[in-house]
Amino acid sequence: MNRTIQDQLKLIAGENNVLLEEEDLFTYSFDAAVHTPETPSCVVIPENIESVSNIIRLCSENGIPVTTRGAGTNLSGGAIPDREGIVVLTTRLDSIIEINEQDMYAVVQPGVVTADLAVRAESLGLFYPPDPGSQAVSTLGGNVAENAGGLRGLKYGVTKDYILGLSFIDSAGERIKTGSKTVKCATGYNLAGLLAGSEGTIGFIDEIILKLIPAPRARKSMMAVYNTIEEASGTVSAIIAERIVPATLELLDNFTIRAVEAFKPAGLPLDAGAMLLLEVDGHPAQVQEEADKVETLCRKMGACHVKTAEDEEERDRVWEARRSALSALAGLKPDVILEDATVPRSRIPDMVNALKQISQKYNIEIGTFGHAGDGNLHPTILADRRDKKQWRKVEKVIKEIFEKALALDGTLSGEHGTGLAKSPFFSQEAGDSTIRFSRRLKKGIDPKGIMNPGKIIGDS
Amino acid sequence: MNRTIQDQLKLIAGENNVLLEEEDLFTYSFDAAVHTPETPSCVVIPENIESVSNIIRLCSENGIPVTTRGAGTNLSGGAIPDREGIVVLTTRLDSIIEINEQDMYAVVQPGVVTADLAVRAESLGLFYPPDPGSQAVSTLGGNVAENAGGLRGLKYGVTKDYILGLSFIDSAGERIKTGSKTVKCATGYNLAGLLAGSEGTIGFIDEIILKLIPAPRARKSMMAVYNTIEEASGTVSAIIAERIVPATLELLDNFTIRAVEAFKPAGLPLDAGAMLLLEVDGHPAQVQEEADKVETLCRKMGACHVKTAEDEEERDRVWEARRSALSALAGLKPDVILEDATVPRSRIPDMVNALKQISQKYNIEIGTFGHAGDGNLHPTILADRRDKKQWRKVEKVIKEIFEKALALDGTLSGEHGTGLAKSPFFSQEAGDSTIRFSRRLKKGIDPKGIMNPGKIIGDS
Repeated sequence: MNRTIQDQLKLIAGENNVLLEEEDLFTYSFDAAVHTPETPSCVVIPENIESVSNIIRLCSENGIPVTTRGAGTNLSGGAIPDREGIVVLTTRLDSIIEINEQDMYAVVQPGVVTADLAVRAESLGLFYPPDPGSQAVSTLGGNVAENAGGLRGLKYGVTKDYILGLSFIDSAGERIKTGSKTVKCATGYNLAGLLAGSEGTIGFIDEIILKLIPAPRARKSMMAVYNTIEEASGTVSAIIAERIVPATLELLDNFTIRAVEAFKPAGLPLDAGAMLLLEVDGHPAQVQEEADKVETLCRKMGACHVKTAEDEEERDRVWEARRSALSALAGLKPDVILEDATVPRSRIPDMVNALKQISQKYNIEIGTFGHAGDGNLHPTILADRRDKKQWRKVEKVIKEIFEKALALDGTLSGEHGTGLAKSPFFSQEAGDSTIRFSRRLKKGIDPKGIMNPGKIIGDS
Repeated sequence: MNRTIQDQLKLIAGENNVLLEEEDLFTYSFDAAVHTPETPSCVVIPENIESVSNIIRLCSENGIPVTTRGAGTNLSGGAIPDREGIVVLTTRLDSIIEINEQDMYAVVQPGVVTADLAVRAESLGLFYPPDPGSQAVSTLGGNVAENAGGLRGLKYGVTKDYILGLSFIDSAGERIKTGSKTVKCATGYNLAGLLAGSEGTIGFIDEIILKLIPAPRARKSMMAVYNTIEEASGTVSAIIAERIVPATLELLDNFTIRAVEAFKPAGLPLDAGAMLLLEVDGHPAQVQEEADKVETLCRKMGACHVKTAEDEEERDRVWEARRSALSALAGLKPDVILEDATVPRSRIPDMVNALKQISQKYNIEIGTFGHAGDGNLHPTILADRRDKKQWRKVEKVIKEIFEKALALDGTLSGEHGTGLAKSPFFSQEAGDSTIRFSRRLKKGIDPKGIMNPGKIIGDS
């Protein structure tokens, strides 16, 4: 990056907010996906949205790629920068601007940590449901940009379902406003909908208006232990067939149970073939009824043990164990590929079977856990990229997982995004015409292609 | 329209499916909005999506504007065609292709009538909540294109909240696919989100995958009668402040009550200053509790009479009366302007006050009813456009209603769309940069500007 641009960035954002040292740049060369890192030419940490606008305008004038980054927890490579480009961090734009209790919405800056908003809402008797696995560190701007899901997708939906409106800085440095503080808005294009899951390729997300809902009055958490994963996945279908919609319905196979328990002991059943973690919430009477029904169904489908959490402390311990799954697995091998191919809920048993067969075919271990209740499993492949022969097999495994998900009427990604990792497979799901359309759309609103190039639609 | 094009359209869609007679064309020159009609040059009624694709390809090659039309119930002029253009009807693309009970989704063609899907879902113990006032005739393609709301927006959201995926024909005649049959999907751009509320300006909506949910087990409908509209609107705020989220929470002022009762007697209280119609639903225990709380709140806020519907028959009669409000009002004067400026729910009393003042200031009668629970009122102006002096006052009234809604942190349209009617006011809400951005977006994906030109962003 030439010196003039560096100086201009320093003028805009402040001398100390422009990082140019090799060590700093390396820190921002990767995210949580298994993908080749790219070192950016510069990292900028703006302190207000006017700076962001000026930074992007400068980049637009000079054709410099811009990659926005929150906490970098992205699992599809969406936060990996362009080597000619700059990284713009949202971390200092981290104010919860307003929580309106009466109208039940929050206005936040993009750098607010997901869990911070959830905790603030909870303290007011309100509820912000989207809870990606990384919520303790992930940012709301990143959640919007990735349309992040989480454990509660089944009953409560994902991030896009909570965006009432937002503003963003477009590729020309202009501030665009869409949506409203009202629960209904049909004015203009639903640009907020388009920004959800746009992975930084359309604009830098500024203020976000998020819907909050009344907190459920009661909840009950349960653990069901099975000898086989088939029994557990069959239970998922049985619960859905009964029209019970739990707040969370998570599956963990034996491999994941052992990894989690070794990482941080929580009393999980080490010899179980699989387990389900469930929570039902809502009105106390409904919670009791649903919990009873779910317990009966679990036993009927073969659970050898069903346990209800006695108190909040026990509940939290078990859910924390579940939430640590990725960290636990990540420690086992140099490269942990966490897929999120998703199928209609009733096809979970088929998908579980297919994963077993693929694992055996290539002799590659695949751990399986995830949001079984919404069809969003996380098959996890532990590997070492340096072992070329093994890596070629891993690539075939990934390809077969995608193919199977599509054959089961599913999708490549339930919540991790397309990014760089799934971009080559996108046409398989949606067809070439959809890619051409998406490229025309991108070209229209970012004619110089500076906003996070290469993500979703590849190099257009 | 030249003869060659006419012949080609007949070849594509069939001789009998191309209308060219003046009487036919006139029928499709207007929708339910008060706006100057435009007679199209031709109306085509395709019987399959391949025809649609060929029609649009032909129009693209010849620069002919295309306006898609469902039932024509649009209230912002979105279905008013271009005089050089053609109208493409969705009415024969009216199959419910699949209802998947296990995975709780429906796949429908765009011409399916909203209520038909709702009834089919109900017969299976499932629930499709979006219920625009015109649901008995409106089509699901139109609902998506307008992001239609309805009475249940407060608790259940609007059309966009139920779109899992869709396919559409773009301006080049290509079929584009977005979303999935899964409840989570983060693959590609959220084009389904962009199509929601795009008013035919981006593509011809083909198959739609809609989320269904389990039907609530119980419901209770109530009617609360007030001497003044201020007491009624105060009750709305009080209910929301208690964190009760009714399925519906409708307000009718005296003017609307009288119009509705005269249209079709349902036993509404003719001398009431205003009334609230409410329904709570969910688990039986919760319904009973909420109904009790709501009744107490209504009385506390000044209701002189609160009545719970004794049975389904009584319930249906009262809701039918509410649903007939627009038809009832429409019969009173030659032009009925139904606005839908929307505010955060707690500002409903402010908005009700403002409407009263605006009405007095211009000496123009404004009836007020609508979805008070989600801040989406329908101020209704009865007028006669032929009376030029009165009409100028009406235009000022509309302008002031918009200004007030924006001053109260609201939006121009909660559910009727921007169309032609609100397009001139759009920049007041979102700023010129948002319009410029929207035009670039439109230009990128519809370079020849053939898809329903003039709507939302004006003539770009």
